[in-house]
Amino acid sequence: MAFEFKAVRRVEFSETDMAGIVHFSNFFRYMETAEHGFFRSLGHSVVMNSFDPPLGWPRVRAECEYRAPLRFEDEVEIHLLVTEKKSKSLSYLFKFRKLNGPAPIEVARGSITVVCVTKQPDGKFASATIPKEFSDQIEIAPAELLT
Amino acid sequence: MAFEFKAVRRVEFSETDMAGIVHFSNFFRYMETAEHGFFRSLGHSVVMNSFDPPLGWPRVRAECEYRAPLRFEDEVEIHLLVTEKKSKSLSYLFKFRKLNGPAPIEVARGSITVVCVTKQPDGKFASATIPKEFSDQIEIAPAELLT
Amino acid sequence: MAFEFKAVRRVEFSETDMAGIVHFSNFFRYMETAEHGFFRSLGHSVVMNSFDPPLGWPRVRAECEYRAPLRFEDEVEIHLLVTEKKSKSLSYLFKFRKLNGPAPIEVARGSITVVCVTKQPDGKFASATIPKEFSDQIEIAPAELLT
Amino acid sequence: MAFEFKAVRRVEFSETDMAGIVHFSNFFRYMETAEHGFFRSLGHSVVMNSFDPPLGWPRVRAECEYRAPLRFEDEVEIHLLVTEKKSKSLSYLFKFRKLNGPAPIEVARGSITVVCVTKQPDGKFASATIPKEFSDQIEIAPAELLT
Repeated sequence: MAFEFKAVRRVEFSETDMAGIVHFSNFFRYMETAEHGFFRSLGHSVVMNSFDPPLGWPRVRAECEYRAPLRFEDEVEIHLLVTEKKSKSLSYLFKFRKLNGPAPIEVARGSITVVCVTKQPDGKFASATIPKEFSDQIEIAPAELLT
Repeated sequence: MAFEFKAVRRVEFSETDMAGIVHFSNFFRYMETAEHGFFRSLGHSVVMNSFDPPLGWPRVRAECEYRAPLRFEDEVEIHLLVTEKKSKSLSYLFKFRKLNGPAPIEVARGSITVVCVTKQPDGKFASATIPKEFSDQIEIAPAELLT
Repeated sequence: MAFEFKAVRRVEFSETDMAGIVHFSNFFRYMETAEHGFFRSLGHSVVMNSFDPPLGWPRVRAECEYRAPLRFEDEVEIHLLVTEKKSKSLSYLFKFRKLNGPAPIEVARGSITVVCVTKQPDGKFASATIPKEFSDQIEIAPAELLT
Repeated sequence: MAFEFKAVRRVEFSETDMAGIVHFSNFFRYMETAEHGFFRSLGHSVVMNSFDPPLGWPRVRAECEYRAPLRFEDEVEIHLLVTEKKSKSLSYLFKFRKLNGPAPIEVARGSITVVCVTKQPDGKFASATIPKEFSDQIEIAPAELLT
């Protein structure tokens, strides 16, 4: 059973804006990268074509609090922690830590809630129960990690 | 005194993802576009070089709830409403409405809090009081618009 | 018969980078926006679901020369001109003009070649002849416009 | 003396578009990532603040030919090769190879030319001679690697 995943990435030039810092919208891309790494660590892709019908995971809520900026070439760790597991949805907390510099500091904290859906033949999404074989791999992170 | 702004944009191909819908991170870019239109409607740029030292507006919090997807070439209205005005920060609510289709529907709702800062010579930001001439132009939206 | 299209857009904050100018990759997004406007001006979407099987237009080549930077809130005109029409492909020239400032100046010039494809049931693309009803709407721009 | 650099990255969900493939503009971001890795491999950042005045490297030309699509979670190697070294500019070739799948295949090939500039106090760029200590580290790739 897994409740966390850590991804590390280096800030790219194209992710900065004219203020000289990472554009705030990119923190949401970083969160998603960590989520997909979490899925891969469990042997799955977020594009679950091995299920019939294929499953998808649209976001229903996303949030981020920014405490300090990230700059070009900073190394950032994105620490995903599972905070909620329901029959049709998952919620994650993300802690962003800048690894370079005198000492690692938390620069941001975010959260995302996703729902499990199947794609209908007309292209619309219908909510679906998370497959047991996947759900059984996931548990909620211990409370002391969520502070 | 102003408390709202409406921007309209058409979804671009590069804003979609392989799920066939607008990537969730782009809603935050859309919010920012509306905010900058709001600033321009008051005669200002978000890059306030007319002040000395120049002012910037980093985000300290951003959030979005997604209710229905946006797809390529959809027309979306982003309705900014001021929800809070403090001496050094502003908060906005954003209502996203898809204008095409049988009837307009609200597809998402977001919020952003920004703080006013000056950029120090070393590149770091220091929080600053919102200039009176700008602050005086802004008021909080009536409660009935915020539901 | 149509051989050109002009799109105008204002540079957004999220399109700039830490050098204070529009990131060079965004010129390619701007070109695509103009292309899709061109398609719409002819009554089509670049996602040609009205054809069976649906058609797509992947890029086989893209190029851009940069002469002067674009900055936040600049207004830029993207002038698309058709330079080549083959049975299965189209080529465009794009002239970028900055409209604000003392006098409009050309800031960049790009080109894109696209091929017409159908999407196979296995998700792969197969090149296809451009439908006559669409091809008949398009002609090559006069030489004097291409200098 | 160095003439090449290889970066490897995994395609992220947010880099795909509704056609199910990596958006063509992202190949230019990938090229830049490889270039910056090349700079770092020589002990430099592309933001050359160790020089006075600081140096920058705006692009004057960028080009890409697309041969096969990249999809979500594909692993792609971006192989940078120096093709030209002038007193004030550098040119690179980039070979994109998809590493997963039955056998690695070249999916795209690109090129970029950059010029060395200093940023003037008014924010404008002035072309500059590449510092000898940096230029001396770089040589042109052998012809047989450029085919």
